Amino acid sequence: MELLKQRIEQDGQIIGTEILKVDSFLNHRIDTKFLKQIGAEFRRRFDDVASGIDSIITVEASGIAVACFTARFFDEVPVIFAKKQKPNTMNSDYFTAKVESFTKNQTSNICIAKKYIKKKDTVLIIDDFLAHGNAALGLAEIAGQSGATVAGIGIVIEKSFQGGAQKIRDAGYRLESLSAIKEMKDGKVYF
Amino acid sequence: MELLKQRIEQDGQIIGTEILKVDSFLNHRIDTKFLKQIGAEFRRRFDDVASGIDSIITVEASGIAVACFTARFFDEVPVIFAKKQKPNTMNSDYFTAKVESFTKNQTSNICIAKKYIKKKDTVLIIDDFLAHGNAALGLAEIAGQSGATVAGIGIVIEKSFQGGAQKIRDAGYRLESLSAIKEMKDGKVYF
Repeated sequence: MELLKQRIEQDGQIIGTEILKVDSFLNHRIDTKFLKQIGAEFRRRFDDVASGIDSIITVEASGIAVACFTARFFDEVPVIFAKKQKPNTMNSDYFTAKVESFTKNQTSNICIAKKYIKKKDTVLIIDDFLAHGNAALGLAEIAGQSGATVAGIGIVIEKSFQGGAQKIRDAGYRLESLSAIKEMKDGKVYF
Repeated sequence: MELLKQRIEQDGQIIGTEILKVDSFLNHRIDTKFLKQIGAEFRRRFDDVASGIDSIITVEASGIAVACFTARFFDEVPVIFAKKQKPNTMNSDYFTAKVESFTKNQTSNICIAKKYIKKKDTVLIIDDFLAHGNAALGLAEIAGQSGATVAGIGIVIEKSFQGGAQKIRDAGYRLESLSAIKEMKDGKVYF
């Protein structure tokens, strides 16, 4: 997605060779006009399977906005966001998966209440970043526990050099990344 | 908002006299069709000040979806969500406020990067729940630090009996709650 690449080049902050901050439009300040275009692009990419999708699943927190704007172009299906811990108001049964966070350097359990994903469902997994693939694979694992079908995994920014994309494709999932970064070096992004 | 009250009565799970779970449509599974109506209702409530609003601010995680659907009806202004901790990818200057979470029984610092709220800005604060008022007042405190004007505070579900609404009004802020719960007792909600 050309517009996204331009935006990353223009507004992204590169820290070392591994971290890209896109706080100005994606995951702290949300440029809602731009996210609408992101949502429309996911629809274009997954148009062939769109009519069969029952829900969009993502992980809190920064996946939520992307998933919501994407749902708009998938007949307003529900968005289910996995929680990263079990707050004391969640007391029923959950599907869970262990996920290591690259940016936060911590491991958390992500969980989705069993009643919100059924065996007959087809889900689309959406997230903002794909680095080592842990969050996306955790969501796929949860979908697997429920018996639901994963129509695909949609990612805004793939950092291809961190291996997650390969892991996801090796696991047999369809992956659509709206941008894929091969390398970050000397403050520049190479797609 | 009549539709919201009906939805709370129909789908809300009451735990004791203080906790209301609305995971089925608001803060785990997001009913995006319904949230669009929530957004439209916030526009109706704040219509008189809508044209002056520069951004919508909220707190991760469950405020994000509500804020995004609200932005749609406020000329697609940006949404800025306060983060609950300072991840290691955030390294510049932040406005911060201490917030106690009622449901999670923990205190966190919420923070917004200074560059995203300017003195000249008028912001609308949006959140899913208002209990003791800590999150909303924390956001107002952050807006105050920036010098920005708070046009108002929009809440989906106010639990009036927990005192936050009174605190917010006493502090001089305009509060628009789409539903206000006076009491929860014997598994029933009283508006």
